[in-house]
Amino acid sequence: SLNLAADCNAVLKALQPIFQEQGMTETVHNWEDHGYLATYIKKNGSFANLRIHPHGLVLVDLQSYNDQMKGREEVDQLLNKVEERMKELFHGNIKRVKRLPAILRGGVIDRYWPTADGRLVEYDIDEVVYDEDSPFQNIKILHSKQFGNILILSGDVNLAESDLAYTQAIMGSGKEDYTGKEVLILGGGDGGILYEIVKLKPKMVTMVASNIDQMVIDGCKKYMRKTCGDVLDNLKGECYQVLIEDCIPVLKRYAKEGRMFDYVINDLTAVPISTSPEEDSTWEFLRLILDLSMKVLKQDGKYFTQ
Amino acid sequence: SLNLAADCNAVLKALQPIFQEQGMTETVHNWEDHGYLATYIKKNGSFANLRIHPHGLVLVDLQSYNDQMKGREEVDQLLNKVEERMKELFHGNIKRVKRLPAILRGGVIDRYWPTADGRLVEYDIDEVVYDEDSPFQNIKILHSKQFGNILILSGDVNLAESDLAYTQAIMGSGKEDYTGKEVLILGGGDGGILYEIVKLKPKMVTMVASNIDQMVIDGCKKYMRKTCGDVLDNLKGECYQVLIEDCIPVLKRYAKEGRMFDYVINDLTAVPISTSPEEDSTWEFLRLILDLSMKVLKQDGKYFTQ
Repeated sequence: SLNLAADCNAVLKALQPIFQEQGMTETVHNWEDHGYLATYIKKNGSFANLRIHPHGLVLVDLQSYNDQMKGREEVDQLLNKVEERMKELFHGNIKRVKRLPAILRGGVIDRYWPTADGRLVEYDIDEVVYDEDSPFQNIKILHSKQFGNILILSGDVNLAESDLAYTQAIMGSGKEDYTGKEVLILGGGDGGILYEIVKLKPKMVTMVASNIDQMVIDGCKKYMRKTCGDVLDNLKGECYQVLIEDCIPVLKRYAKEGRMFDYVINDLTAVPISTSPEEDSTWEFLRLILDLSMKVLKQDGKYFTQ
Repeated sequence: SLNLAADCNAVLKALQPIFQEQGMTETVHNWEDHGYLATYIKKNGSFANLRIHPHGLVLVDLQSYNDQMKGREEVDQLLNKVEERMKELFHGNIKRVKRLPAILRGGVIDRYWPTADGRLVEYDIDEVVYDEDSPFQNIKILHSKQFGNILILSGDVNLAESDLAYTQAIMGSGKEDYTGKEVLILGGGDGGILYEIVKLKPKMVTMVASNIDQMVIDGCKKYMRKTCGDVLDNLKGECYQVLIEDCIPVLKRYAKEGRMFDYVINDLTAVPISTSPEEDSTWEFLRLILDLSMKVLKQDGKYFTQ
C-alpha cells in the first residue's frame, strides 16, 4: 500500500510497460471513483490482474496453468520490476510490500485445509494415502512430510501421526496411573487413546465407536499406525474391546447394569454427527453424554474430554 | 475440476447469467486453444474472474475492497449458484469442488506468514504489538489468539509464547540436570532458554547475543514475557550474565583462557546474519561455531542445537 493518496493513473502508466514487455494484451477498466482494473492476457493462457485503488492499495495477481509462467523465476522477475517501478514512482515512500506464495488449484493433491476458524493453511502434503466416502462423511488420510499421515474428516483436520501430544493431553498429561484400571473411551476412532492406554496395563479398556466411525477405523488401522499401532487390527485384545455401537444406548445399558469405570475419556468430535433423532441439538447431545458418563463413573473416577 | 473434457463454451453460457444478475459487466477473452477468461466488473469496484480451462478446470476468483461484497453471505450465495449450475450441466459428474477462505490484503494487520519452506499460513493475528527496523532486520511481535505473542524476524516466524516445547527440546527434553552446572547459550535473544535454565539452579549461565540481537532483546523483554520472564530486564542476575558481543571472539577468548562449560546450547538462527567478514559462507560459520564450542566443552559436557 502507498503512503500518499495515489495518483492511480500514474501507477497504471508506470506499470503498464512491465506487462506489455511480456507480450501481454491489455484491457483497462476505469471506475473513475474506484480506480482501475487492468487485465493483461498472454497468448499461452496465463493472465494478470492489476487492481489500483484510489486510496493507495495496489494488487497484482498472476494466474497461470502449470508451467505457462516458467515457474517462480519469471514470476519473481515480473514482481521485482513492479516493486522497483513503484519505489521509483513514490521515491521509496511505500508502506508495505508483500508477496504471497502461489496458490495451487486443481492439482491431484490438495494442500489447503483451512482451520475450524476459517484460516487458510497450506500443508506440505505429498501423497493422498486414503480417500473414501462413507454414508456419513468423506474420510481422507494425506501424507505430510512434517506431520506424517493426517486424518481429515469432511475437510476438517482431525489428527496427524505427529499428534501424540493431543492423545497424551486427553489422557491426563502423563499424570494418571492407568494400571489395573477400568477405562471407557467414547469415540476415538483413530485408535490413539486406546493404543496409548493399552501400553499402561489397564484392567480393561472399552472403546465405543459408532458405525459412523467404521470407515475411519478401517482407514486408520491401515494408514495411521504410528497413532494406533495394532490395536485396531482386532476388536478384542487381552485387556481391551472395541464396540461398534452408538455410545448412548451403551452408556444407558452400563448405567442400568451398574457397570462402573475409573476413567471415561470422551473423544467424540466437537460437533457431533448424529444419526439418531433422540438428540435435538448439539448441546442436548453433549449434556446427555455428560450425564450418562457421570452415572458410569466410580466415586473417585475421572472424566476427560477436549 | 470436471470429470469429462469440458465444453468451455457450455460452461461459460451456463455461468454468465449468475454474474450478469449481479449487475456485472462482462468482458470475455477466448484463447481458442486455452479456453476462456471472463471478467465481470461491478459498479462498486468489485470484480470477478472466471477462468475456464479446456481440460476441465474452472476457477472463480472474486475480489472486493472492504464491504463492497456485503461480506461472506453474498460471496457464498454467488458461489453456491456457480456450484449448482455446474452440477446441473455435468449431471453431478464433478471430480472436486473446493472453496478457499478469502485472502485479506492491504489491512493494518497482516495475517499471512509463510513457512520457511514457502507454504502459505494464515495466523489468527489480532494485534501488532511491536514493529521496528534494526540496522540488521525487521523485528515484529504480533499477537495471536491461539499462540500468544509471536516473534517474527524479517518475515520469518521465530518463536511464539506458546512454544515452550521448542525451548524444552533444545535443553534436552527435561532429561538434563542443570543444577550447579556451567552453561553457555549462543544466541537465544528471546530469552526463553535463559529463563528456563535459571529456574533450575545452575552455577552460572552465560548467554552471548550479538548486537544484531539487541533490538530483539528489547522487544522480547517487553512483549514476550511468557517466554523470558524477567531475565532480560537486567544483563546480570544471581546466576547468569548476558553478553552483547559477537559469539566468535567470546568463544575464542574462553578457549584461550581455558574456561570450560558443562553445556553449550547453540540457539543461533539457522541461517546466520553475519556482520563480520571472517566467515565466508554459512557452512564455514557453522563449522567454526561447532569447533570453538567443542574447545570450551568439558570432557563429559553436552552440546545442544536445533
